Amino acid sequence: MVNGFDPNNMDGLDAALQDKIRKRRELLGPAYRLMYAEPVQISRGLGTKMWDAQGNEYLDAYNNVVSVGHCNPRVVEAVHRQMQTLCTHTRYVQDGILEFAAEIIPTFGAPIEHIMFTCTGSEANDLALRIAMHQTGRKGIIITSEAYTGNSFLTAGLSPSLGKNSPLGTWVRRIPAPDSYRVPPAQIAELLVRQVAHEIAELERRGEGIAAFIADSLFSSDGIYANPTNILQPITEFVHKAGGVVIADEVQAGFGRSGDRLWGFQRHGQTPDIVTMGKPMGNGFPVAAVAVRREVIERFGNEMRYFNTFGGNTVAIAAAKATFDVIRDDGLQQNAAHIGALIQNGLREIAAGDDRIGDVRGAGLYIAVEFVKNKATKEPDATTALAVVDELRKRRVLISATGYHANCLKIRPPLVFSESDVDRLLTQTRAVLSSI
Amino acid sequence: MVNGFDPNNMDGLDAALQDKIRKRRELLGPAYRLMYAEPVQISRGLGTKMWDAQGNEYLDAYNNVVSVGHCNPRVVEAVHRQMQTLCTHTRYVQDGILEFAAEIIPTFGAPIEHIMFTCTGSEANDLALRIAMHQTGRKGIIITSEAYTGNSFLTAGLSPSLGKNSPLGTWVRRIPAPDSYRVPPAQIAELLVRQVAHEIAELERRGEGIAAFIADSLFSSDGIYANPTNILQPITEFVHKAGGVVIADEVQAGFGRSGDRLWGFQRHGQTPDIVTMGKPMGNGFPVAAVAVRREVIERFGNEMRYFNTFGGNTVAIAAAKATFDVIRDDGLQQNAAHIGALIQNGLREIAAGDDRIGDVRGAGLYIAVEFVKNKATKEPDATTALAVVDELRKRRVLISATGYHANCLKIRPPLVFSESDVDRLLTQTRAVLSSI
Repeated sequence: MVNGFDPNNMDGLDAALQDKIRKRRELLGPAYRLMYAEPVQISRGLGTKMWDAQGNEYLDAYNNVVSVGHCNPRVVEAVHRQMQTLCTHTRYVQDGILEFAAEIIPTFGAPIEHIMFTCTGSEANDLALRIAMHQTGRKGIIITSEAYTGNSFLTAGLSPSLGKNSPLGTWVRRIPAPDSYRVPPAQIAELLVRQVAHEIAELERRGEGIAAFIADSLFSSDGIYANPTNILQPITEFVHKAGGVVIADEVQAGFGRSGDRLWGFQRHGQTPDIVTMGKPMGNGFPVAAVAVRREVIERFGNEMRYFNTFGGNTVAIAAAKATFDVIRDDGLQQNAAHIGALIQNGLREIAAGDDRIGDVRGAGLYIAVEFVKNKATKEPDATTALAVVDELRKRRVLISATGYHANCLKIRPPLVFSESDVDRLLTQTRAVLSSI
Repeated sequence: MVNGFDPNNMDGLDAALQDKIRKRRELLGPAYRLMYAEPVQISRGLGTKMWDAQGNEYLDAYNNVVSVGHCNPRVVEAVHRQMQTLCTHTRYVQDGILEFAAEIIPTFGAPIEHIMFTCTGSEANDLALRIAMHQTGRKGIIITSEAYTGNSFLTAGLSPSLGKNSPLGTWVRRIPAPDSYRVPPAQIAELLVRQVAHEIAELERRGEGIAAFIADSLFSSDGIYANPTNILQPITEFVHKAGGVVIADEVQAGFGRSGDRLWGFQRHGQTPDIVTMGKPMGNGFPVAAVAVRREVIERFGNEMRYFNTFGGNTVAIAAAKATFDVIRDDGLQQNAAHIGALIQNGLREIAAGDDRIGDVRGAGLYIAVEFVKNKATKEPDATTALAVVDELRKRRVLISATGYHANCLKIRPPLVFSESDVDRLLTQTRAVLSSI
């Protein structure tokens, strides 16, 4: 795991923290991971700030889930009001879910007509793929090289970024990430379409055929490639011709994060059949969803059924509606565009005077800074990237790292990030870079 | 689906309800189902009561999720307090998750040592099976005839109760449900162990081998067979000898519902390797978990990792802790035993004078009433069972139906069901049975 704490490196941590880390291992077992060389203990959050048990303030430039800010009062209040009134499932008729569905569906644009609720992005992608497989009667799925689609059996099998011990499904084929730093941007679309064509031919040759192509338009776990935006629609058209279903995974890019548009796929002028969403949807309350074209869900819906006990329950809907309303009312997509540009500009200024930074890229509040050993060879430099992450953490600014080589900073703050937060982030980044 | 509303039967429903049902179909698509011939619109809940938009009160004898009662104030308050303080994930160190883990782990009994958090029971079962497959390096899974294990790709493939259009995994083998009404109870354990042996041999013959046996100790979707309780341990021992992992699915039976013990597997003196739990865990807040023996998670944990964005987040833990504390402090397992016995006794009295009722069975607050056309032939009678469900719904008492033949009433109220609730349930049941 990129930026994971190594439990063999406990030395130098304070004794109370060591004790808690040992308790975690004892109680939660070996599959849990912490972030940073020195893990952070957080006990309170508000807006873009978090505080540890000792009262130290941290600037949160990492957590996309609390998109409208830690403990956003409108979301807290909406959840509380609904918790006091009714918390129940979708097998009773309720107004709230219909009102929210009617509000969100038009934002996807025709021909997406329906929305179904799950609790997590993993469940949303798992369901989307089940629908695609049922609809097409086929199994093959195409993803990008280092995609992450979820933690269920099916989606973990489609998540190469989980590492080489996590087996990929035998029906999964990979195309390269659109590495705009190493491949001339004008050539990427053609290259990827050609690769998709090849993988579809391979799937057909094996009798599996193409059920679905699924991608996150920011290619987050591949290393964050927000541009060019002419890639996904040609792939979509090719997959459609081959009879496959196209899934836009908006778990990372959705809900205004890209700044340009509410949904990441719209930056590519893409016409997906299914849109999945999760993480920021309820500002931390577990709620996620699958939006889908009528023709694509019809067979699944009529021959099967889908019920998710907590998915779209009355409280989940209250959280999602409040979060969505705040994004719109407070202009957070526009803020993501504005603040994201300030961050990228600041980072580019820093990069201009720093040979270790090969690339600064992203869209809105999803930004990568790629470290290289040499700007000519572009050899990845994970050591420096991770050092920057850990030094920033010492200065109480939280970001993380990403990419196959773990050599990219991942900057992905709540959408309510302010100009003064940008100053603090850039000031501390400058200080760190001059200190290491 | 048992007790599902048929959208082709809209006639006779009031116009406003018809309109909302049409809107649901339009917005949520064809995969959603409603309950009852006349769907219920619920707008408020408290304790064991729910109210519709017109202010009519319903007795809830169905919803196991709100196990400590609709809108339980301790849970509402705990969630609110935590929502105002911090809602974040498990990659930071937190005290709450460690305190709750330390509280719940001992209740499983040795050698279960660790607990991992997910959002839904489906995710818990999916993860448990991934762990079992990784640990054993095998694929085969044995379930009971009409099991329901979840809605993910993997668990839906292990859920014959989803109906014949939902494909079972090719690596899934089924054993009969322990039908204590049709098979002499003394013979069931031996019969099932023999069948498990046969299925393991078949799996091995196919090179798949046995990864896991998974069962819900109340066999809820099979038709609710709470007794005899000498079945699961002999199966467990056999599966262990064959190198398989044994999973106790406590999504239905757990958290005191059986009345006898906190966990259903304990009624069978069973020694599972993994215990999964979900539905009532947060009284409606999405939280679920996998508790596991150290040796069974070790390989998975060291070679892979597991992260669930919302799973075990600070608010989910607050909900789970409050719910668990209420179950203990208010003696709800004991209440389930006491009230469950009152219901079963009352139903047996009714059954003694009613030729249509073949069997009354269950444990604690999970009770089945099986309808037959003839007590000698035991031919299932779904028509009467569904008529009882719908007539009770007209009298504002909510239960449902279950079983392969859909001929069993499913009575499964919140654990806070009171003696006067029992009176109302029995009085209305008597009235319905004499009216149809």
